[in-house]
Amino acid sequence: MEVTNRFITLKHHVDQGRAHESDMELGTTKEKLELKGENDVIVRVLYLSCDPYLRGRIRSTQDSYIPPFTPGKPMGGYGLGKVLQSSDPNFKEGDVVSGVMDWADYSHAFRSTKVDPEAVPLSYYLGALGMTGFTAYVGFFKICEPKKGETIYVSAASGAVGQMVGQFARLFGCHVVGSAGSQQKVDLLTSKFGYHEAFNYKEEPDLDAALKRYCPGGIDMYFENVGGKMLDAVLLNMKDHGRIAVCGMVSQYNKAEQDPIYNLSYVIKRRLKLEGFIQTDHLDLQPEFFKSVIGWFKEGKLNYVEDIADGLEKAPGALIGMLDGKNVGKQSVKVSDV
Amino acid sequence: MEVTNRFITLKHHVDQGRAHESDMELGTTKEKLELKGENDVIVRVLYLSCDPYLRGRIRSTQDSYIPPFTPGKPMGGYGLGKVLQSSDPNFKEGDVVSGVMDWADYSHAFRSTKVDPEAVPLSYYLGALGMTGFTAYVGFFKICEPKKGETIYVSAASGAVGQMVGQFARLFGCHVVGSAGSQQKVDLLTSKFGYHEAFNYKEEPDLDAALKRYCPGGIDMYFENVGGKMLDAVLLNMKDHGRIAVCGMVSQYNKAEQDPIYNLSYVIKRRLKLEGFIQTDHLDLQPEFFKSVIGWFKEGKLNYVEDIADGLEKAPGALIGMLDGKNVGKQSVKVSDV
Repeated sequence: MEVTNRFITLKHHVDQGRAHESDMELGTTKEKLELKGENDVIVRVLYLSCDPYLRGRIRSTQDSYIPPFTPGKPMGGYGLGKVLQSSDPNFKEGDVVSGVMDWADYSHAFRSTKVDPEAVPLSYYLGALGMTGFTAYVGFFKICEPKKGETIYVSAASGAVGQMVGQFARLFGCHVVGSAGSQQKVDLLTSKFGYHEAFNYKEEPDLDAALKRYCPGGIDMYFENVGGKMLDAVLLNMKDHGRIAVCGMVSQYNKAEQDPIYNLSYVIKRRLKLEGFIQTDHLDLQPEFFKSVIGWFKEGKLNYVEDIADGLEKAPGALIGMLDGKNVGKQSVKVSDV
Repeated sequence: MEVTNRFITLKHHVDQGRAHESDMELGTTKEKLELKGENDVIVRVLYLSCDPYLRGRIRSTQDSYIPPFTPGKPMGGYGLGKVLQSSDPNFKEGDVVSGVMDWADYSHAFRSTKVDPEAVPLSYYLGALGMTGFTAYVGFFKICEPKKGETIYVSAASGAVGQMVGQFARLFGCHVVGSAGSQQKVDLLTSKFGYHEAFNYKEEPDLDAALKRYCPGGIDMYFENVGGKMLDAVLLNMKDHGRIAVCGMVSQYNKAEQDPIYNLSYVIKRRLKLEGFIQTDHLDLQPEFFKSVIGWFKEGKLNYVEDIADGLEKAPGALIGMLDGKNVGKQSVKVSDV
């Protein structure tokens, strides 16, 4: 089967400062779609996911758990696709799968899982029921070790991960406080995402004072998405035996020199646990995650807000916008109808 | 019973910079030793323990788990004493107990435990079998979650805690690397305390390079005693899923502004766990601690080096010397013979 395949490539690595839409470009090629031996799957790409960790892959330095993109080759990440050809006995033509795939119209798919397009809106499998939702689930239920009645504070709380953490924590019986970077996002936190209290961190000149106002009894759990000055202020407000689940530090990803942290002595003073995690280390929790979260959606107990760009050519702008915090809700790109 | 009681007091709090011997003084008073109701114990003080956490009690600010000393009143801490009077059914005259007591010749004792002066040299109950040894035991066996064959790095490795951590880790089957601040201490690490490798951090202009040289395969566990620049260098050298047991940050205790930490993003990149702890949260482990450690001493498997100042009047100098790293081994003060 020969197709005209469009794809997004990185023109060059960007090690410092912001990456820009113009650092990526759309290419077109004619190619023959051919299975490579056994257990291969070729898909028509339906949706692609824009996630903060992709900033690391635009850097030339290999200092994280994931390698850099190769300039000139298609970028890639989590996506949803419809199976066109399969030599993997687990998948057949017409199945819809989530997996890792190129930022392209057509791609081989890796680490695929079949999804049920009837259970929830399809794009949810990239977010609420995808990597970011599972990240929220692992981070809250496992890394935070929550107890009913405890106070959790979440930064970047309206993001793809944060909006799920807030709702999981509310359902679990915690007091839930979040921050975001615009009034629109703050309104979503309390109206849709289960947060009891929310504030716009950009309007708080003194983060320590803001946290003391919104969490007057202190913080038992901090779900860390941003790093830097926010983390430093949170450390001052943690309660004894508090837990900090370190999911991301998006405020630091563009910085050549990281913001200094001064308050780590609170790790001893308050006997805190800080733990970095990635969801792929906890795949044993996936069955209970799917069961719980699909159940909660069907019972109407969960909301989910997405920001979907339409068309593969919009992917670079969507990615950069997400890194700049311009998206409202989980950022994805729709490439094709089912 | 009326006695002439000598005691050490703090003249005033010292919030910033080094504390000095001259910030403390010896006082003398005549007093009548009288039991205060039930479950009280009065002891002749035998030994007193000089520990890094005492620096925090010399400060006026209450921002830790332990209150400041009151100027003019006797200082206090862990000690050993011989029971003179007791209204506590667990203790009788002549018993030797470890507990919390004044820096004085005579004191009421709190949280006392009877010790066996025949099992090991008596002063060991302030160190190897006391708070610092138990801190090492909790930090290594519980917080570090060790596995045989893993590499552990210990800072302040010849200190009261570090020398026990090294030996516990060696007995357990780990590769053990330590640092200290003089050649004499470094020699002790490899000759007496079970360390496979050791270095003098004061002679290493680039701590990151030193750690790469002494731990070329990376660090699975870091037993943190010093904080600051050492912690920042260690973060760069941790292996995936590494654990950092945060026991103390002695390099930071005198500083008005804490040293900045820049490399916390490695908590995500390497999925690290940092955990602050104090031994009093883990008293359930004390029975196994005493059984194991007394057993290892009797089998000749453990060494212990102490630095004992002779006389209550030497206590201020011993404390300051320990905070400056001048002691070799666990610093205690002998107040009286049994």
